[in-house]
Amino acid sequence: MTIKSFHPPQRTLMGPGPSDVNPRVLEALGRPTIGHLDPLFVGMMDEVKGLLQYAFQTRNELTMPVSAPGSAGMESCFVNLVEPGDKVIICQNGVFGGRMKENVERCGGVAVMVQDDWGRAVDPQKLEDALKANRDTKVVAFVHAETSTGAQSDVKTLVEIAHRYDALTIVDAVTSLAGTTLLVDEWDVDAIYSGTQKCLSCTPGLSPVSFNERALEKIKQRKHKVQSWFMDLNLVMGYWGSGIKRSYHHTAPVNALYGLHEALVILNEEGLANAWARHHKYHLALRAGIEAMGLSFVVPEAERLPQLNAVTLPAGVDDAQVRSMLLNEYQLEIGAGLGVMAGKVWRIGLMGHTCNNRNVLLCLHALDDVLGRLKAPITRGVAVAAAQQKLAE
Amino acid sequence: MTIKSFHPPQRTLMGPGPSDVNPRVLEALGRPTIGHLDPLFVGMMDEVKGLLQYAFQTRNELTMPVSAPGSAGMESCFVNLVEPGDKVIICQNGVFGGRMKENVERCGGVAVMVQDDWGRAVDPQKLEDALKANRDTKVVAFVHAETSTGAQSDVKTLVEIAHRYDALTIVDAVTSLAGTTLLVDEWDVDAIYSGTQKCLSCTPGLSPVSFNERALEKIKQRKHKVQSWFMDLNLVMGYWGSGIKRSYHHTAPVNALYGLHEALVILNEEGLANAWARHHKYHLALRAGIEAMGLSFVVPEAERLPQLNAVTLPAGVDDAQVRSMLLNEYQLEIGAGLGVMAGKVWRIGLMGHTCNNRNVLLCLHALDDVLGRLKAPITRGVAVAAAQQKLAE
Repeated sequence: MTIKSFHPPQRTLMGPGPSDVNPRVLEALGRPTIGHLDPLFVGMMDEVKGLLQYAFQTRNELTMPVSAPGSAGMESCFVNLVEPGDKVIICQNGVFGGRMKENVERCGGVAVMVQDDWGRAVDPQKLEDALKANRDTKVVAFVHAETSTGAQSDVKTLVEIAHRYDALTIVDAVTSLAGTTLLVDEWDVDAIYSGTQKCLSCTPGLSPVSFNERALEKIKQRKHKVQSWFMDLNLVMGYWGSGIKRSYHHTAPVNALYGLHEALVILNEEGLANAWARHHKYHLALRAGIEAMGLSFVVPEAERLPQLNAVTLPAGVDDAQVRSMLLNEYQLEIGAGLGVMAGKVWRIGLMGHTCNNRNVLLCLHALDDVLGRLKAPITRGVAVAAAQQKLAE
Repeated sequence: MTIKSFHPPQRTLMGPGPSDVNPRVLEALGRPTIGHLDPLFVGMMDEVKGLLQYAFQTRNELTMPVSAPGSAGMESCFVNLVEPGDKVIICQNGVFGGRMKENVERCGGVAVMVQDDWGRAVDPQKLEDALKANRDTKVVAFVHAETSTGAQSDVKTLVEIAHRYDALTIVDAVTSLAGTTLLVDEWDVDAIYSGTQKCLSCTPGLSPVSFNERALEKIKQRKHKVQSWFMDLNLVMGYWGSGIKRSYHHTAPVNALYGLHEALVILNEEGLANAWARHHKYHLALRAGIEAMGLSFVVPEAERLPQLNAVTLPAGVDDAQVRSMLLNEYQLEIGAGLGVMAGKVWRIGLMGHTCNNRNVLLCLHALDDVLGRLKAPITRGVAVAAAQQKLAE
């Protein structure tokens, strides 16, 4: 077998994640590996915790990255907070609500699904109605920023409602963290998880999570052991907890954590409010170009995420062909639709390091060129100028 | 908050893992991130599968890295192969057998523990006796290379016995893969998991696993859904399986997989048999020095792992003080004892890229110096020469 080293091309990543990784993060990944119990590494872990608390806007002591991708962060929330027989209301408005249902059921919980249209925010009134009809609900779960549709829900209002009915809240912030306003303490979110490969612009593979005191209390009062040893927060906290004495749980992904540390240092340098504003600014420029071209957004304006733009395909165009041309001719990745939206929408990410003026213009130019050559029903030659005008405002 | 970029020192890692990472692997980690569904990335994944099949010496189609550390690889084996009520015999001879018990019980299985002394290989006769007394056993699990003690067990014999009683086998090869002979197909192992941060000398964070047809059959015939969504092999295989059409499960840790690919390419270049021989050769040199110093090994010679050397502390010496002096004065990490062996033994790793003549001599010189200054009862000034003589043979 003669397999050689793998040398990836330099793409521009404008899909639903991973986003482009800051070269500083890539450089950090390659620094010398040290032991996962090395005092210097433990010191770095404390910095990662502090930086994550800043990113989440929380003082929660239990704030750390799970050593696995976002879907393991999701599972960490459910296996720790849901016990067999617990009723959990899931507000579903896209693919990831469905994954939450799977999680609840695999924990032995009872999932009550509250459905909203894909591409719309979660409707607070429907949640309230469901809670009235299910007074024994223990947990309410929903997605802040639905990566499958680009819709943003009102976390503050949904959490308020859940708490009025004495339910804990689990919030999916995979795509929202560092891309759009997220205030964990002010909104009183009980448990939240995210991913590193979206607006943090770190490589994929880690899942920042945070749990407040109310969530911890529930974990302490569990009647059954957490079904996952790897994700049991009682054990994980022995390693990530405060103090010099750390007890070995699993071997931390040392170099991946160097990368996350660097990504969080970069976020800290920019400032969270500036990062949110930047995502909003370039979204407006992209939107101007997309609309000038005659294409439309899936999500109504008031519920739209800046960092994930779901755009309806023009009539008669083959999804895979367009994405393939963009990838091969422009080294540009945009995302396909997921689930019921497969083949009908593109998901254009403007996340983290990807989110800048050059990429907005590149994406619009490339779409204009490729769709034009495929004779799609768009208005040609105006998208880039529309975006530039917006950028100049 | 002013937290700066983290710049780790250059250590020499001679603990129980992570081991020193080949600079080629570190360089690969920093290559440009591409999408986890990018055709070029999918091609690289196929190469990783093929290279892992080589490392495991198997043709198992279901061979891949779990996107999380070794303990998640362990859990992937148990949650997929153990159903509620299943009886599982665990042969325990160190810390990791205890973790297996936790896994079985959290899956709703019934763990039957067969205890061997820590520091000894698993006794095949005890396994056979336990199987005779527990004819309804569904799974037998044990550790090939106990990282907590440095003992090596006879996988071939243990698997033969288990199969005679119609039990499946789960083998922990975290520390053995690429360091000592391991023949998954020839030994007919049903399910096996490893880690990347030991003899593969890759960064920590991934867990190579392999399952044979017998294991797959058991998974297909499950009555209950796998309790973990993240680790459900039915779903994971949709992404790692053959064919061009991959279905999205979770976002793969792209850059970590670049690193694993490179580590496996390096192993392939060296050749597996050469890697095993190298670990044996430098173990003999280290041993010569350790014994010349008057220190002794925990494990009897015939059951000793070459890549993990558990050495008894000389009388009157403070474990933490010695390790701290080695770390601060020599940038050298060796491992502490785990569990009942804490404070009583050191674990000196000679794994992967760490395993060479320079590091054997460095470690012996540093130990000789530090222990001498602490007035430990050792024979001074002879260890390095003894190792050099062994190396010259």
